[in-house]
Amino acid sequence: MKPLKTVTIVGVGLMGGSIGLALRKRNMAEKVVGVGRRQVSLRVARRVGAVTNTTIDLAGGVDGADLVVVSSPVGMIIDHVKQVAAACPEGTLITDTGSAKQAIVDALDSGLPRGCRFLGSHPLCGSEKSGAVNADENLFEGAMTVITPTRNTRAEDFDLLEQFWSEMGSMVVQMPAEEHDQALALTSHLPHMAAAALANTVPEQYLRLTAQGMRDTTRLASGDAELWVHILSLNRDNVLKALQQYGAQLTALHSAIRDNDEEKLRQFLTSAKKNRDALGS
Amino acid sequence: MKPLKTVTIVGVGLMGGSIGLALRKRNMAEKVVGVGRRQVSLRVARRVGAVTNTTIDLAGGVDGADLVVVSSPVGMIIDHVKQVAAACPEGTLITDTGSAKQAIVDALDSGLPRGCRFLGSHPLCGSEKSGAVNADENLFEGAMTVITPTRNTRAEDFDLLEQFWSEMGSMVVQMPAEEHDQALALTSHLPHMAAAALANTVPEQYLRLTAQGMRDTTRLASGDAELWVHILSLNRDNVLKALQQYGAQLTALHSAIRDNDEEKLRQFLTSAKKNRDALGS
Repeated sequence: MKPLKTVTIVGVGLMGGSIGLALRKRNMAEKVVGVGRRQVSLRVARRVGAVTNTTIDLAGGVDGADLVVVSSPVGMIIDHVKQVAAACPEGTLITDTGSAKQAIVDALDSGLPRGCRFLGSHPLCGSEKSGAVNADENLFEGAMTVITPTRNTRAEDFDLLEQFWSEMGSMVVQMPAEEHDQALALTSHLPHMAAAALANTVPEQYLRLTAQGMRDTTRLASGDAELWVHILSLNRDNVLKALQQYGAQLTALHSAIRDNDEEKLRQFLTSAKKNRDALGS
Repeated sequence: MKPLKTVTIVGVGLMGGSIGLALRKRNMAEKVVGVGRRQVSLRVARRVGAVTNTTIDLAGGVDGADLVVVSSPVGMIIDHVKQVAAACPEGTLITDTGSAKQAIVDALDSGLPRGCRFLGSHPLCGSEKSGAVNADENLFEGAMTVITPTRNTRAEDFDLLEQFWSEMGSMVVQMPAEEHDQALALTSHLPHMAAAALANTVPEQYLRLTAQGMRDTTRLASGDAELWVHILSLNRDNVLKALQQYGAQLTALHSAIRDNDEEKLRQFLTSAKKNRDALGS
């Protein structure tokens, strides 16, 4: 991929900051502009080297961009992409990093002004941490990034984004936004809910009796609550279905234990171990 | 604590092997005898330096022991302690490392032959890994160990065990076996079940769309299935109650999302984050 002249990142938290660091480390862009709402976050992004320029003025920040990445909290992505499209150069490609895609793609797939196009991305990485201070130039190494093209997507836009994420070290897979949301409800949103419910089940007086296993299993629950309100709300139908499927597994487990059915319990735990071992460490 | 002359460890897997390594590193015993069923496991325990002597003959292995630690799979502990008591020197203290305590303590609290006494221990550490090959001399550093005395427990036995675990780096807390099992159902057995059910919910074709969060949340499901059949069965009533409490949390979460009740959802996730953050990293 030929280095881009200017990439603008709207929202320089953990994800946006990591994109900036990865772009700069790999010389993928001459100029990386960070757009944010608060000077303090922008200062952090500059200090860690994630961006070369910063501004709180979105219109000014996207002026001259060759590619815009909207990495705002998922509930604000649609608005921000529309604001970007109103101010960026004619015909600019805009992508995002939101964890729920269908609502975003449905809202932005067509109708952007002046020939601008939106094509959704979702890098399956991140952390329960947040902020550019935790940004990591290798965040995308070995991670999967989903691109969600539609029948309106231009081949050259897809190719550009595929190269963009690949050069940062990511594996790229494409699928419709609808399928993405169904899958992520199970592979990402459900683990978050399972962790949060577990953290809410253990009473405070027992916390000292927890070990590493409990800490691992609940780690996701440390994620930003407001962000997750939006992800779960945006992917509501799939998330409810995932919770039901999880509930059915827990009910089967409960029955096996209640009925002293050791063979059923053994099968349940053996199948779980096989599935988990397939994920690697 | 004055160094013991001989400590015998029955079962030199991850836990027994780590005890052996910790004892030897800290010069807490002159001789550490490993008793196992298979020569191959005993060879590994010798090779990693967890024991000074090994035998597959339990009676021979406990002959001359000042303290015996039964670190067998939890389903075999009661039998093994009885075998130890029949062969060890008169008046020997025997402890264990089982994850469920009430059934074990009930069976062994009185009636051991020739003045031998059992006092239960449970170090809250371990790993989804197994075998002496994964033994760690620092496994107990900073971990909590529960000792479960009864009204039959002698003060000097309690003091000996408290020093034994403390010198290996563990914090020690005492509580009745019944309370231990209630607490551990929530802090250890429930996380295992939540992880296993999650691993069984995500279909194989979506595995490539998982990220670190899913790997953390399901890590416990890699644990030995047979071991967990026994733990969950031994602590059946508490485990069923813990599953019900977890189910109630998941139902509350489901309702909040279904009803688009963002305030309730926010409270749920905020409370989970607060609880999780209290656990540390």
